[in-house]
Amino acid sequence: MAQHTDVHVVILAGGIGTRLWPISRRARPKPFQPLLSSRSMLADTYARVAPLTSPARTWVVTGAEFVPLVREQVPGLPEGHVIGEPLRRNSAPAAAMAVARIAREAPDAAVLVTPADSYIGDPAAYRDYVATAAEAAAEGFIVTLGVVPSRPDTGYGYIQRGDRLARPASAYRVARFTEKPDRETAERYLASGGYYWNMGHFIFRAGRFMERCEQYLPEVAAGARRLAATAAPDPDLVEQVYRDLPAISLDYGLAEKTPDMAVVPTALEWSDLGTWRSIKEVAARHRGLDLGGENHVGVLSENCLVLARSGRLVVTVGLEGCVVVDTEDALLIVHEDRAQEVRQALEEIARRGREECL
Amino acid sequence: MAQHTDVHVVILAGGIGTRLWPISRRARPKPFQPLLSSRSMLADTYARVAPLTSPARTWVVTGAEFVPLVREQVPGLPEGHVIGEPLRRNSAPAAAMAVARIAREAPDAAVLVTPADSYIGDPAAYRDYVATAAEAAAEGFIVTLGVVPSRPDTGYGYIQRGDRLARPASAYRVARFTEKPDRETAERYLASGGYYWNMGHFIFRAGRFMERCEQYLPEVAAGARRLAATAAPDPDLVEQVYRDLPAISLDYGLAEKTPDMAVVPTALEWSDLGTWRSIKEVAARHRGLDLGGENHVGVLSENCLVLARSGRLVVTVGLEGCVVVDTEDALLIVHEDRAQEVRQALEEIARRGREECL
Repeated sequence: MAQHTDVHVVILAGGIGTRLWPISRRARPKPFQPLLSSRSMLADTYARVAPLTSPARTWVVTGAEFVPLVREQVPGLPEGHVIGEPLRRNSAPAAAMAVARIAREAPDAAVLVTPADSYIGDPAAYRDYVATAAEAAAEGFIVTLGVVPSRPDTGYGYIQRGDRLARPASAYRVARFTEKPDRETAERYLASGGYYWNMGHFIFRAGRFMERCEQYLPEVAAGARRLAATAAPDPDLVEQVYRDLPAISLDYGLAEKTPDMAVVPTALEWSDLGTWRSIKEVAARHRGLDLGGENHVGVLSENCLVLARSGRLVVTVGLEGCVVVDTEDALLIVHEDRAQEVRQALEEIARRGREECL
Repeated sequence: MAQHTDVHVVILAGGIGTRLWPISRRARPKPFQPLLSSRSMLADTYARVAPLTSPARTWVVTGAEFVPLVREQVPGLPEGHVIGEPLRRNSAPAAAMAVARIAREAPDAAVLVTPADSYIGDPAAYRDYVATAAEAAAEGFIVTLGVVPSRPDTGYGYIQRGDRLARPASAYRVARFTEKPDRETAERYLASGGYYWNMGHFIFRAGRFMERCEQYLPEVAAGARRLAATAAPDPDLVEQVYRDLPAISLDYGLAEKTPDMAVVPTALEWSDLGTWRSIKEVAARHRGLDLGGENHVGVLSENCLVLARSGRLVVTVGLEGCVVVDTEDALLIVHEDRAQEVRQALEEIARRGREECL
């Protein structure tokens, strides 16, 4: 399929990545860090979407303090295309801020909203799916990409497909969204087919998105339109608008409410790279687990991911099922089954007043 | 029991401690490192024996390159009392070098030979046992200290006791030495009683030791006497003598052969601190496992020993049964069941040419 080059792209780079400490840090969170690649996740994301668009049609929304980092990692975006949020308000306001600007100029333009921290195994196939989704968006749908699940994962949201669309034929109406199901439900989904993991990548016409925003998230729509009225809104105004915005995700705030949702099922290998466990899984498939290279010596160690980033020698003997992340000032050793609990450790670090390590 | 102050003490500080990497290093091996104490193991050993003797009666035998380290850690020993060996020849030659010197001046003096790397829970009780052993030594016996075994350990040597001595009544002739038995045998020893772990601490009259040395290790006796003939033997002569010495332990070379061996059973808590597992066991009983202090944060981590020696933050999440040793230039994570295999890792480090880390 030919790749469209008329898609506008909004990259959401607001993720904190707490559970990916000590690579993800307050001063340089997950999207700005290399994890499985030599580039940062943001730079990887930009490289993935660049063939679909142009810098003039690309936007990045991030925390205000990270605007310089975005400029450094994605050079060449026009003035005003890196939107710094003074407060975190989740993905719906972040997306709306950029889409409102696009809608002013080109309400019929197709927009792709993508998180900056997805892992996608085959970027070319991804772009083809986006092009398909853009066709459905042209029909007026708000389209999400779904992944055919390969296991009954209880950590992801699921999308149940409904009727097939007339055009394109490989897209479906969304029957229902289900957040993190229990094991039994997830197994049923897997067995019955017609359920997909929700990637959190959306494609729609800019004007249609703003209409739905006005309907379901009127404060968000109003705030976004207000800030989109001038090229460079006054920082005090931005602050004032953000203070009154609800913090709400695109999924909850809009996708689960609007009747015109569609899904393009994909065979993509995808991960939200939310925990060290998920990173270990992706690494195991593609890069091999030993990312320590010359700096890691493993003896009788199995099923471990070692990121040796400090230059020190890391030796593992008889270690199993763990992720080891060695950085200049902090070391993490986490069993994959406890990857969610890295959060607890950060709370303890904060309690001890070791803020410099967070 | 009154503590004798007329015992001569020979501390053998030749241990390399390969399995205790990365604390034990080529340039500063195990005896010169603090492990469970704030002092080095050598300094701990000296503090344990000091009440039994005086600096003028204390000797340390070590590798020639470590003489300055011994001088630093055990200050105040007389000229010539730190004996530097140009080659490693195991414990029999090392002990003989010092005992030959003692025997020249005081053949009837009681001598205690102790490794520099034992852990002993109750130093005062230990000194009492040494005093008891010295009584048996005065009767002409070569005496070893035994530990009542608390579990069927297959990593230690065992001593079977024979007949009770007439004096002191708490000592026995040695019936037999057994090196590292299999599990079944070790369990039988434990059940039957009368078997003790061999601590490798010996007490004897200096002259008697040299006689037995001449009998069973004639080259060692001749070499030791030759070097003991002058206060400061010529380094070339030392080198030449050492080149021809057999490498042999006190246990194999002498204790297992001589008929006049006696054992003083002790209720000491003792460990040879040979592996991270043994250090973890001692730490668990006395200090608690978390030696990382403020630099370690553990979440859902059980039964782990963490030595955070680099000042960096060490975070463990869901880790079990491991020892983590964090130093400036190297990090070890080893499961306790694989503590012996640290050696394999060192071989790999050498293969990679990272000698600076060894």
